[in-house]
Amino acid sequence: MTTSLKADDTVQLGEEMHRLISELYPICRSITGDGVRKTLHILQQLIPIEVHEVPSGTPVFDWTVPKEWNIRDAYVLAPTGERVIDFKQSNLHVLNYSIPVHQRMSFSELKEHLFSIPEYPDWIPYRTSYYKESWGFCLAHNSLCKLVEGEYEVCIDSSLENGYLTYGEYYLPGKTDEEVLFSCHICHPSLCNDNLSGIALATFLAKHLSSQPRYYSYRFLFIPGTIGSITWLCLNEDKIHRVKHGLVISGVGDPGKMTYKKSRRSNAEIDKVVAYVLNNISENYQIEEFSPYGYDERQYCSPGFNLPVGRLTRTPFGQYPEYHTSADDLKFVNSNALAQSLVVYAAVVDVLEHNFKYLSTSPKCEPQLGRRGLYGNLGGQKLTKADEMAMLWVLNLSDGDYNLLDITERSGLEFAVINKAANTLFKSGLLKKL
Amino acid sequence: MTTSLKADDTVQLGEEMHRLISELYPICRSITGDGVRKTLHILQQLIPIEVHEVPSGTPVFDWTVPKEWNIRDAYVLAPTGERVIDFKQSNLHVLNYSIPVHQRMSFSELKEHLFSIPEYPDWIPYRTSYYKESWGFCLAHNSLCKLVEGEYEVCIDSSLENGYLTYGEYYLPGKTDEEVLFSCHICHPSLCNDNLSGIALATFLAKHLSSQPRYYSYRFLFIPGTIGSITWLCLNEDKIHRVKHGLVISGVGDPGKMTYKKSRRSNAEIDKVVAYVLNNISENYQIEEFSPYGYDERQYCSPGFNLPVGRLTRTPFGQYPEYHTSADDLKFVNSNALAQSLVVYAAVVDVLEHNFKYLSTSPKCEPQLGRRGLYGNLGGQKLTKADEMAMLWVLNLSDGDYNLLDITERSGLEFAVINKAANTLFKSGLLKKL
Amino acid sequence: MTTSLKADDTVQLGEEMHRLISELYPICRSITGDGVRKTLHILQQLIPIEVHEVPSGTPVFDWTVPKEWNIRDAYVLAPTGERVIDFKQSNLHVLNYSIPVHQRMSFSELKEHLFSIPEYPDWIPYRTSYYKESWGFCLAHNSLCKLVEGEYEVCIDSSLENGYLTYGEYYLPGKTDEEVLFSCHICHPSLCNDNLSGIALATFLAKHLSSQPRYYSYRFLFIPGTIGSITWLCLNEDKIHRVKHGLVISGVGDPGKMTYKKSRRSNAEIDKVVAYVLNNISENYQIEEFSPYGYDERQYCSPGFNLPVGRLTRTPFGQYPEYHTSADDLKFVNSNALAQSLVVYAAVVDVLEHNFKYLSTSPKCEPQLGRRGLYGNLGGQKLTKADEMAMLWVLNLSDGDYNLLDITERSGLEFAVINKAANTLFKSGLLKKL
Repeated sequence: MTTSLKADDTVQLGEEMHRLISELYPICRSITGDGVRKTLHILQQLIPIEVHEVPSGTPVFDWTVPKEWNIRDAYVLAPTGERVIDFKQSNLHVLNYSIPVHQRMSFSELKEHLFSIPEYPDWIPYRTSYYKESWGFCLAHNSLCKLVEGEYEVCIDSSLENGYLTYGEYYLPGKTDEEVLFSCHICHPSLCNDNLSGIALATFLAKHLSSQPRYYSYRFLFIPGTIGSITWLCLNEDKIHRVKHGLVISGVGDPGKMTYKKSRRSNAEIDKVVAYVLNNISENYQIEEFSPYGYDERQYCSPGFNLPVGRLTRTPFGQYPEYHTSADDLKFVNSNALAQSLVVYAAVVDVLEHNFKYLSTSPKCEPQLGRRGLYGNLGGQKLTKADEMAMLWVLNLSDGDYNLLDITERSGLEFAVINKAANTLFKSGLLKKL
Repeated sequence: MTTSLKADDTVQLGEEMHRLISELYPICRSITGDGVRKTLHILQQLIPIEVHEVPSGTPVFDWTVPKEWNIRDAYVLAPTGERVIDFKQSNLHVLNYSIPVHQRMSFSELKEHLFSIPEYPDWIPYRTSYYKESWGFCLAHNSLCKLVEGEYEVCIDSSLENGYLTYGEYYLPGKTDEEVLFSCHICHPSLCNDNLSGIALATFLAKHLSSQPRYYSYRFLFIPGTIGSITWLCLNEDKIHRVKHGLVISGVGDPGKMTYKKSRRSNAEIDKVVAYVLNNISENYQIEEFSPYGYDERQYCSPGFNLPVGRLTRTPFGQYPEYHTSADDLKFVNSNALAQSLVVYAAVVDVLEHNFKYLSTSPKCEPQLGRRGLYGNLGGQKLTKADEMAMLWVLNLSDGDYNLLDITERSGLEFAVINKAANTLFKSGLLKKL
Repeated sequence: MTTSLKADDTVQLGEEMHRLISELYPICRSITGDGVRKTLHILQQLIPIEVHEVPSGTPVFDWTVPKEWNIRDAYVLAPTGERVIDFKQSNLHVLNYSIPVHQRMSFSELKEHLFSIPEYPDWIPYRTSYYKESWGFCLAHNSLCKLVEGEYEVCIDSSLENGYLTYGEYYLPGKTDEEVLFSCHICHPSLCNDNLSGIALATFLAKHLSSQPRYYSYRFLFIPGTIGSITWLCLNEDKIHRVKHGLVISGVGDPGKMTYKKSRRSNAEIDKVVAYVLNNISENYQIEEFSPYGYDERQYCSPGFNLPVGRLTRTPFGQYPEYHTSADDLKFVNSNALAQSLVVYAAVVDVLEHNFKYLSTSPKCEPQLGRRGLYGNLGGQKLTKADEMAMLWVLNLSDGDYNLLDITERSGLEFAVINKAANTLFKSGLLKKL
């Protein structure tokens, strides 16, 4: 297939993705604010993302675009004056979306604002409070245990004010305005698998597709989780019927196996295509039924839209201990896994791009392949048995009911072989596109 | 669920059902006659059953209401003058619907009218001859073997005359005139599992439901087998479209496991509900496909009606040796099994009563549960993970295609949890009833 | 069932089929020519086949009827003058459809026209070159190895000229002009299983059906493979809608198990009937999904026709080493296997002939079987439990949606029992034909 990635390219692409993740890692992102803007600015050096700013207070379906959050510094001073918690060491230390605070308090008062993970005492948890005004600090449980009674000084130099929700969009037009939607969330601070890996994959997939011939148009969304997809769906309701297939990209850099979560429809074309690709090129993978809990597929698959959008990750969120902790770092994601994930995504696009329905122009009895030079040999090369069978299958099932993936499944042959046969027959005039 | 039986109540209810069975046990019932009237009269002390009398000769579809049968006494005198068979000892001794006879005859002549079960030589069989005029006696095989040659005096003091077919009906109106039909047969004489157990369960289920709020209307039929259901269907043909669900109740007091026989439709709502309830609350059960042989489901599921009526029993008829013999007595049925059966029936009603389809009022993207106090905590109580997932599932699938049981199945959660979530969302205005 | 073969007859029929195969074996057949005419002439002594002659050059869909091929002699003379390859020894020695040739040539030049099977060095392969003008010889690999360098004389005394494509057709009218199509290919020279066995079975099945009452009309085609079915479909396009069921007959004399290849529709009535019959009377069989490779089902199941035509063989072609070699001889096929195959075909016809849909004339509640003498006893004979159940099933499911085979499957009873019950009920007026 013409658009698929060459194996040689992928090693290099994996390393480039990891470098991008490293560059984005230090930035303190949230669902709004300058962290998102900086992130999109860096991505714009690779692909021409369009940045959208939606004012706080904008009603979006049942929700309202929140105030914009920014943070400059945050720390806790121990009774000794020592900085025992320091935002500058890790942006995970601050409860994301903390309101500004600067005061002195007893340890017992402070303690109600501290979060740790006793099971992983060296890791800092990642916590947020987007829709309830609050403040807090996250820290390693071992650090928490060292804190003593006494008076502490607490400072969060943040702001929560009317501003904007920022998101990025990259649209690659194709032959048709029917779209494939790729969506990744960009709201997490220094966390690599969830979801700098998704940002990196989306960026490099977009870059790859920009240089390919395209039947479909492709839309890449770089949005804050939940409120971002809700906002985009609300502002683009008139275009949504164009979305024919979609995937939510996240968690694609960990060493676990690929996992596909089906769309709400459960048998949409994207569901079949991903299942075929995983079965065809992955050694190990799993497929899960839809559930209404998860990433932004929750919104795309809400009943009022019910878009054919699945979620393609490696280990699903919540199923690895590093999830939403400081251990989801630059070592947790590796360039090999990133490259393999990109190969799967590119192969999914490949199948989508060629999964046409054809109509046999000679449906009554078999056409005589021999007199067209389509039997035994083709253009000087001996046809394989599979090539000949593929032509018979495509001719037999091209009645308007079967697309090439359906024919692939019924024949037991490979999609690439079926697609090659369809191309040969199309060129010889024995098929027309439907 | 609001209508379900409390576990505490069921022990007592089981004992009350067994007492009712004991009270009804001595009466000689048949498909017509005073035995049926006496039986309904006793039931009327518990629930206000309406008694219908249909004249002999009334045409009912392909059948005709038969003459009324009554019996006062019956016996066989041995050559010695001893009463070797005595109706007063057991009403099973007389072939049910025997015409009157009083004559002397040789043993060989008499023998052609005697029925026994060699495999169970102590048990009296139960035999009938409703639609062919005949007479006979049933007795233990051991007793039969003791009879010697000689002249016997035979007397059956019965009558078979124009009269009535008697049946009882109890209608409990609900919010809608859509009905749930419960049907039990009342034509068997001193036999406990088949079917005094069914009569007792129907009576106590009706009593229970009479004190509950009801969405559906409920109709309880106490009818003679076959001719009773045919008669009722014929006289009520104009109402039959109201029957949305139904169950034939019989054999619910033996110690065997619960058995559900599906309706002819095989995937009616009642079929799914009973399967769910059995799976959810029974340790051991079985589900059988429909077959046109059995109790009155034969008539309800005839092709001209094809009602969604299944049959819910414990051990199916014919699959226990005591069936249709004197061993189906007061010891064979126990209050524990009766109580358990009642619990299952009440749970089935519970699911039916709440198995609505809802429509999300906020179908485009998820509604913001947090600002409605539906996230994390609800009314001061911490929501379980299952409660939160249930709300997401109900919101996601309430598009008009799924009822709550469908959502239960797709989510893998319990119906009670799904129903609770639906109620919460309904109260908050996020759902409307369809 | 009335039309089925008696077990006593089948031994004799198996032997007669083998004798017919022996008589046809020496003839050199091809897709055109006198071999086909001779073959049909012999068959006409058994059934009144109509012979059709279609001129060379006739366009038939995407194909053209080819020139007619005939052959008188062919040989290769060694440098010693010895006849080392001799058509008169076996007509497989000549590449079927070889153009005339008579010349001298070196061994290395000759070698390019010689075909053998190294894996089976004693067997002569069968090869053809219908649509590419060419010549050649087939021989045992052992014989090939004995040939030495030197000058050879090569002679093929054949002709390839404008003439006719010859095929046979036998039409047996029934009560309806809806047809069952049986098709066998007659283009193979001295090869027994593929396909003299098919020709013999078709002939004897036709002979058998000619003496039976018939609901359907039956059409038997004796045609050259591929071009024959294409020609017939093209010339009879206006009649093709009458074909309600069909089977391609081939390879029915080898000792392997029966194999059914489904029609393209995969759940056509013929697919269900053959599966039922094989399951009911064969000890060992297999069922394969449709594929577009094979015999003339390729044409009948092309998308423009999509006829409900399956293929019923013993071991499928290509799955036994004797296939398309001289080892597919008179010893490879046996009269026992031929007879068993005929029994299966006759049983398939039996089920098709009786697989009606009926409509109950008394669909509301059960009809009273007793007063019609249809219960317990029938015409002096005690009804079996299966007979009574069969009547209940037929009455219950005769609502217009189920044919008798559907009822057979849902009831788990045998088709013969269901059919008998349907006949009884039909005679009593409780069913009408749909």
